Amino acid sequence: MFKRIGIVAKPGEVRIRELLKTLIDYLQRRCLDIAIDGNCALLLNDTLLQPPKTPLTGQNCDLIISIGGDGTLLHAAHMIADYKVRLLGINVGHLGFLTDLSPQEFTECLDAILAGHYLEENRMVLTSQVLREGTIIHQNDALNDVVIQKWNIARLITLDTYINDTFVHSQRSDGVIVSTPTGSTAYALSGGGPILHPSLDAVILVPICPHTLSNRPLVVAGNSRIEITLGTHEIDHARLTCDGEVRCELAPHDRVLVEKAKHSVHLIHPAAHDHFATLRAKLQWG
Amino acid sequence: MFKRIGIVAKPGEVRIRELLKTLIDYLQRRCLDIAIDGNCALLLNDTLLQPPKTPLTGQNCDLIISIGGDGTLLHAAHMIADYKVRLLGINVGHLGFLTDLSPQEFTECLDAILAGHYLEENRMVLTSQVLREGTIIHQNDALNDVVIQKWNIARLITLDTYINDTFVHSQRSDGVIVSTPTGSTAYALSGGGPILHPSLDAVILVPICPHTLSNRPLVVAGNSRIEITLGTHEIDHARLTCDGEVRCELAPHDRVLVEKAKHSVHLIHPAAHDHFATLRAKLQWG
Amino acid sequence: MFKRIGIVAKPGEVRIRELLKTLIDYLQRRCLDIAIDGNCALLLNDTLLQPPKTPLTGQNCDLIISIGGDGTLLHAAHMIADYKVRLLGINVGHLGFLTDLSPQEFTECLDAILAGHYLEENRMVLTSQVLREGTIIHQNDALNDVVIQKWNIARLITLDTYINDTFVHSQRSDGVIVSTPTGSTAYALSGGGPILHPSLDAVILVPICPHTLSNRPLVVAGNSRIEITLGTHEIDHARLTCDGEVRCELAPHDRVLVEKAKHSVHLIHPAAHDHFATLRAKLQWG
Amino acid sequence: MFKRIGIVAKPGEVRIRELLKTLIDYLQRRCLDIAIDGNCALLLNDTLLQPPKTPLTGQNCDLIISIGGDGTLLHAAHMIADYKVRLLGINVGHLGFLTDLSPQEFTECLDAILAGHYLEENRMVLTSQVLREGTIIHQNDALNDVVIQKWNIARLITLDTYINDTFVHSQRSDGVIVSTPTGSTAYALSGGGPILHPSLDAVILVPICPHTLSNRPLVVAGNSRIEITLGTHEIDHARLTCDGEVRCELAPHDRVLVEKAKHSVHLIHPAAHDHFATLRAKLQWG
Repeated sequence: MFKRIGIVAKPGEVRIRELLKTLIDYLQRRCLDIAIDGNCALLLNDTLLQPPKTPLTGQNCDLIISIGGDGTLLHAAHMIADYKVRLLGINVGHLGFLTDLSPQEFTECLDAILAGHYLEENRMVLTSQVLREGTIIHQNDALNDVVIQKWNIARLITLDTYINDTFVHSQRSDGVIVSTPTGSTAYALSGGGPILHPSLDAVILVPICPHTLSNRPLVVAGNSRIEITLGTHEIDHARLTCDGEVRCELAPHDRVLVEKAKHSVHLIHPAAHDHFATLRAKLQWG
Repeated sequence: MFKRIGIVAKPGEVRIRELLKTLIDYLQRRCLDIAIDGNCALLLNDTLLQPPKTPLTGQNCDLIISIGGDGTLLHAAHMIADYKVRLLGINVGHLGFLTDLSPQEFTECLDAILAGHYLEENRMVLTSQVLREGTIIHQNDALNDVVIQKWNIARLITLDTYINDTFVHSQRSDGVIVSTPTGSTAYALSGGGPILHPSLDAVILVPICPHTLSNRPLVVAGNSRIEITLGTHEIDHARLTCDGEVRCELAPHDRVLVEKAKHSVHLIHPAAHDHFATLRAKLQWG
Repeated sequence: MFKRIGIVAKPGEVRIRELLKTLIDYLQRRCLDIAIDGNCALLLNDTLLQPPKTPLTGQNCDLIISIGGDGTLLHAAHMIADYKVRLLGINVGHLGFLTDLSPQEFTECLDAILAGHYLEENRMVLTSQVLREGTIIHQNDALNDVVIQKWNIARLITLDTYINDTFVHSQRSDGVIVSTPTGSTAYALSGGGPILHPSLDAVILVPICPHTLSNRPLVVAGNSRIEITLGTHEIDHARLTCDGEVRCELAPHDRVLVEKAKHSVHLIHPAAHDHFATLRAKLQWG
Repeated sequence: MFKRIGIVAKPGEVRIRELLKTLIDYLQRRCLDIAIDGNCALLLNDTLLQPPKTPLTGQNCDLIISIGGDGTLLHAAHMIADYKVRLLGINVGHLGFLTDLSPQEFTECLDAILAGHYLEENRMVLTSQVLREGTIIHQNDALNDVVIQKWNIARLITLDTYINDTFVHSQRSDGVIVSTPTGSTAYALSGGGPILHPSLDAVILVPICPHTLSNRPLVVAGNSRIEITLGTHEIDHARLTCDGEVRCELAPHDRVLVEKAKHSVHLIHPAAHDHFATLRAKLQWG
């Protein structure tokens, strides 16, 4: 059972403050421990509510509730990367791919979830490393995608890809999106990638505007060791982003390694959760 | 070690007859048992060579050598569906995705393969069933793809898709391609699907010219139970094909079930086989 | 000014009958001549309304009002191909790309249109001819598209394309969509084609599931003479459809000629018509 | 007849120097006036050849011969934007879309061209202007494309598009490619655009990785006035490039106007030039 609840919020909106206050009230009445992140603290600053004093960490929570959109939940997932904490997303605004609880139904759903009735999903996380002349200059995780993209230039860059040390191809493009199944409905979809079911143990490589039209999205096994090497020309400058948040500038000859992380993200859904219903709503199928 | 060799050939070409004669001579000098299919028998008809008397079955071979293109190998795979026979493809004309041995190198490669030096790959097979009013009216296997396609009409058909009994969507399109990783470089690629590595335990559903642009290719786990139901309108007539060979005409309300078959196809490659090298050559990458 | 009004209706729906009765009443009170098609006559059969006695032809109307969807308007356009009659579409159900008048606003809009306040658009029409051994075996027009598609076979067909007698390419595919700008938001869009503004004097050729991934949609000048020749193999059987309605079965060696017709279709819109607003609504942009 | 020949070269390669020397020798023997650009001068620096003394301008040439690839010819086109000078491209390395003369055949082709036997094509040029708070802060031309692309950010930007002052849509994407028919086989093709015949008077807008999947490429009339406005958020920073060469950094609220330029580029081809043959070779059709 969940005893220690962390709350993470999107900054700044009035709607979020109201929801936050309702949530804290709900949890306090159930005598649960509450820890909040900095955004929550700011949102509660000028309210009469006595804010919970515990700052949120991955160690002092069993369950983290994210209030906002998919971006807020992605941010929360990065905070607790190494801890087996569950994550639950309440969406404010629209339904999200990751945040499937609406503000209207949240108390009813939380009743059930706190009573132990819920679905738990393990979502794959990718770890990326950047090697420059043999030294790791950067390491970061991603729940959606690791993206290598041209940076400050108008021309195509050259990327050599290897899977498990076997050469795949040398492509000229604007970049490549290495995506988890979770990320397949995010940037990878805009780039022309397929939709992967979250339960699938696989990774997609989606080229961004490739020069060669047959450079199509490639789906490989989840345990693949993906290595992407930047070309050797002056022009081959790029950046690396993880879930659109973290950045590392890449130079010619840099090697980017992407692999499945040892840990995964543990999403909590109401027992009636239906992933395909979310896809139908978000992608306006039918 | 392979003792009993079956040979399957594409009908009719002179180049194939010459290769067939060379192959039989090669195998006879090694005192191996040889069984041939009907096409081989026809090709040898007006030669001086005494053709092997044994007709090929899945039971009397350890290894089947296919001479022709990918289509010939697909045909051979259907012949031996239920037997754990190995398959080796010699291509005549172009390199194939499945038939990677060239006529020039085949004796050298066969020396190594018969000495036990080879790679073996298990390729997923799909089984499809058609149910009409509760009765199975059709059952067949596919190494590449099971395709449901509109039939004798100019308008779109309606297809309802379920994965493991969960509703996915109702789509209007020209049809859908349900493809193995092996088939991902065949018709599914023309339909806009991604390339799946053959080792991946996954199935792709690629809509053909869908009316809704967000009906993108969907990749699901290999053990998924896929059910596709035809719409209820007069217009909802379609056909089902397996590897482009077998046909069943479908009517409104028909249900098509597609699942991974219990058996797989066992492809043999030279030890130096490199799947990505084949992709680079066939798809003219770089 | 419009004096003689024809009415064309989609068969069978109650909503359409009610709208039809309201429309006839509206027009009769304005003392306009009314002619109706067979579907209208059927819909009025069991009503107390005295149906207009004049059967609709292209000669006895200045303006034809189509009640239904885009398909009904396409049908009306075929009826009046050779006459300079205006066409106005009232949609029942959803907004159409061609039928932009809603049942709610139609009397108000008709007031303005009959008073001479309207937009008129000339939409390009394509004429297709099929030549077999030098003889024209088929001729038909299309406002949306002329489609050549494989017929009763599971395999790809070979199509050779010529523009103004210059060879373009020989492609293997499921077929080709030759589309006007009007048709660019219909089947051609599902096939991967671009959206063409209706004012553009251009024709698109969209390959359907082409084997070669670089066989991309091709946009040529509106006055181009397009010739598509079927391949010479047994398998090269196809059908030709115009706006999804008319059919001609094609055999190996058949030549299909497609050109801009001498006549065009004259669409009438309310003065405030905004084509991009229709695109935004239909394609759910934003 | 061409009397005054300008030469423009790609920097640095030995092959180009040899070709340049042969070309100058060829032209000098025909007593034609020769003007060269700075790259040519550098290439001839350490040769025994006495370089032509006239620096190249748009005013002192009837014909400019570009030695290199399509990029070199694009560069030459920018140099002579306002002058009715003809352009001829000799490719070094591969066949180009614009540079169709091979080094092997160039003397023979030049004999014919200088004798007046050639094809002339007028290729549309786009003019782009950037307006910030009512002031034009940038103006440039493009033979291929004007590209607005996100700049130094990982997130999508918002772009509002207007055609002839009518609102088209507000899209979230990585950017947009506004391309001439000439540019349709360059970056626009990688972005998913169609191929436009060079004779077509039309412009394509190709969204780059759009968030909404129905934001498909849009083809509008050549005389359209295209306006694209950057969003109002902090994140909406972008850059503008013309033919991948010129840059202007864009800020929230900036307006980019793109229209057909008054001048066009006059390409010269051998009389036997066949645009579709170039497409077949470059795109590996068939």
